[in-house]
Amino acid sequence: MPGAHSAIASVRHKLESALALFIELINTGTELMLGRVCNTHQQWLCRQLADCGYIVTRQVAVADSGRDIEQAVREALAHADLVITTGELGPTSDDLTRDLIAQMLGWTLREDATVLAHVENFFATRKRPMPVRAKVQALVPEGAIVLPNPHGTAPGLAMEVCLNPFRPDGKPSWLVMLPGPARELHPMFVESVLPLLRRVLPLEAGFVCRTLKTTGIGESLAQERIGGPLQRLIDAGLELGYCARPGEVDVRLSAHGVDAERLVREAEAIVRERLGSHIFGSDDDELESVVIRLLTERRQTLAVAESCTGGCIAHRLTNVPGASAVFRAGLVTYSNETKQKFLGVRAETLARPGAVSEATAREMAEGARRVNGTDYALAVTGIAGPTGGTPTKPVGTVFIGLADASGIVVEQNFNPFDRETFKHVTAQQALEMLRRAILGLE
Amino acid sequence: MPGAHSAIASVRHKLESALALFIELINTGTELMLGRVCNTHQQWLCRQLADCGYIVTRQVAVADSGRDIEQAVREALAHADLVITTGELGPTSDDLTRDLIAQMLGWTLREDATVLAHVENFFATRKRPMPVRAKVQALVPEGAIVLPNPHGTAPGLAMEVCLNPFRPDGKPSWLVMLPGPARELHPMFVESVLPLLRRVLPLEAGFVCRTLKTTGIGESLAQERIGGPLQRLIDAGLELGYCARPGEVDVRLSAHGVDAERLVREAEAIVRERLGSHIFGSDDDELESVVIRLLTERRQTLAVAESCTGGCIAHRLTNVPGASAVFRAGLVTYSNETKQKFLGVRAETLARPGAVSEATAREMAEGARRVNGTDYALAVTGIAGPTGGTPTKPVGTVFIGLADASGIVVEQNFNPFDRETFKHVTAQQALEMLRRAILGLE
Repeated sequence: MPGAHSAIASVRHKLESALALFIELINTGTELMLGRVCNTHQQWLCRQLADCGYIVTRQVAVADSGRDIEQAVREALAHADLVITTGELGPTSDDLTRDLIAQMLGWTLREDATVLAHVENFFATRKRPMPVRAKVQALVPEGAIVLPNPHGTAPGLAMEVCLNPFRPDGKPSWLVMLPGPARELHPMFVESVLPLLRRVLPLEAGFVCRTLKTTGIGESLAQERIGGPLQRLIDAGLELGYCARPGEVDVRLSAHGVDAERLVREAEAIVRERLGSHIFGSDDDELESVVIRLLTERRQTLAVAESCTGGCIAHRLTNVPGASAVFRAGLVTYSNETKQKFLGVRAETLARPGAVSEATAREMAEGARRVNGTDYALAVTGIAGPTGGTPTKPVGTVFIGLADASGIVVEQNFNPFDRETFKHVTAQQALEMLRRAILGLE
Repeated sequence: MPGAHSAIASVRHKLESALALFIELINTGTELMLGRVCNTHQQWLCRQLADCGYIVTRQVAVADSGRDIEQAVREALAHADLVITTGELGPTSDDLTRDLIAQMLGWTLREDATVLAHVENFFATRKRPMPVRAKVQALVPEGAIVLPNPHGTAPGLAMEVCLNPFRPDGKPSWLVMLPGPARELHPMFVESVLPLLRRVLPLEAGFVCRTLKTTGIGESLAQERIGGPLQRLIDAGLELGYCARPGEVDVRLSAHGVDAERLVREAEAIVRERLGSHIFGSDDDELESVVIRLLTERRQTLAVAESCTGGCIAHRLTNVPGASAVFRAGLVTYSNETKQKFLGVRAETLARPGAVSEATAREMAEGARRVNGTDYALAVTGIAGPTGGTPTKPVGTVFIGLADASGIVVEQNFNPFDRETFKHVTAQQALEMLRRAILGLE
């Protein structure tokens, strides 16, 4: 349960119900076993599936080793209705999955003319000679559905394993094999795999899912406010989940069946009423994208002055495409001199009450707004740690200032976390102050 | 194989050898199945283990569901020498692992007086009443090794399953159950689990591992340069692995056995000779931490002017504790006006050749150094995309300027990636330019 806590009783119930599909995801990669990279495919695929009502039952990852891949697929076929593998479909001797699985299931491979033409064309348009070995990517099992790969050479493959030799109940399993690189996997999954699943493994009468994103309210308090009022809908089949990350709690509402649409709509209305302006967005919204959108709609501009967050706020804002229309400048004033020079903070203020103070945050915000001529300016000063704390200003102390036409407000917070979490949570609080100011919320 | 490519033939060989331990990691968390969070425990634990010579064979994750946890543990015990679980050891009805596993293996639970005292003390020192349910955390299986949890209440548990009812070969398995929160898991793993593993599952005659971190050289080229010269050591048992991420390739050298120390030392010397100054650090070094260390050692200072990276460089630098000693200011000049106002870029330069040009990068770097009075200044200007490209300056175009006492150099690069990868790779190239300048490298 890394970095999050969750209480998803009704999802659990669904997972345990005999009617649910057993979906197993198998990722391959030796560097996963060595802990050199994080398995981002797992999260991405699970989220895509869950948002369409397909909830993964088990995630497995093994090395790029024939023995381990084969064993994992065999065990998955013994209990899963749907097995999805990623990786090892390419042309090199490293890329094993297709051959191994074909062998294991006794499939005959045939050369697919369309795939072969695609592979040849891929090299031709890039003016590169086609290695002989690249041709193996055109070999597909008899009867397999070929999933086109516009961003690479190896196609995805999907097959119903009808005579499943591994499953004690004799039921068929669907096996979907996808390429490893994200830029090939992601579009193929959205364009080919999800439509296929809806066709061959349809959910009974629909699925609806809605995630409401909140900040400034803890998971327990959110639960306290909405758990009771939602109980009637939960009893009727609504699935309610929470996911808490630093500075953020997601509320996930979903339902299966003919009533799904109504259940989720009624639940959303209740949650919106109970959590009110703590809800900053839905589904894929991030606080920074919401703020950029609000500013863009209003043709308003923003500058940021950062000390302890060290550029984190500017970095997050500029991750949003189109930020340049409203974000004018970020001033990372990491020293007293730069706070004076760029923001006009007074030497007396820096001397006493000091660089980490309400007064400095106020002068930073005021200065950032003035020198940049923006509608809004955010400023943060604090102690990120691990050192630099004092008894009166311990590590985690932070002051956040916000200047706009109506004046300057400063908020003091205490975020006693590790350095990177401190920066993220403080940035979150600053962006939320701004969002509330733009919307005229309390 | 998310975000990385790897060719780890010799590690694979080791994984397939009959002598290797079969290690299985089981993480629990419904939000993992929903794709709401990334499984960072997997990477952290695998890396800790691999760096001590214990290479995980299979990673499994399942929901917080009794049925799924039990099935995963049962299947793991059927083939693994070591099974590590995380999560679900706490006091709530959500927390299932200990009870389920005890039941499954027919273990008797006893109340451990030390653990009970620890739990009571935990609440007492926080002046919070102890919930009745918290006492269950003091229940431990007869014969289990209790792993203390100084940062939480639920202890870790380790047991040798001697009469393993699930394993066809009748061999015993070790089962280690750890708490879910990272702040409890990490110290417990380092302080208690690794020493225990070295004692109860010792590797034959040692293990040595060294990761050399490189930038500015692709994986294929690195392979071409070192693969041949290392072959003799590989034949003698050296394990060689690569892990490529945007802007970075790790070379991992490891060996088991009595010769391990010598093999890795000889290999490191060869790699250092062949890859030379492309190696920026080892093991846990990051380019930003290396740069901050070099500047700190030399008592030199740095300012950064960022346009298209939007604060990413400042953010990375200020993630390093102690950065404030050398990092003076970051100026995120996202508009023409701010480039003029804060950096003194000339209006004529911005008009022609334009904001994204060699000349603007040069004036930004020169201005950032002058206004901040630093030894070095970095500046970047480019087109992050997804829009804003032109035929002559397509998305991905970037100019990086570096100013120091000897003058100004500008490098032009082309990084045609998605927006966030563009920012990361460009930041990487800028930090590498600075590293090379500090060290007086070509």
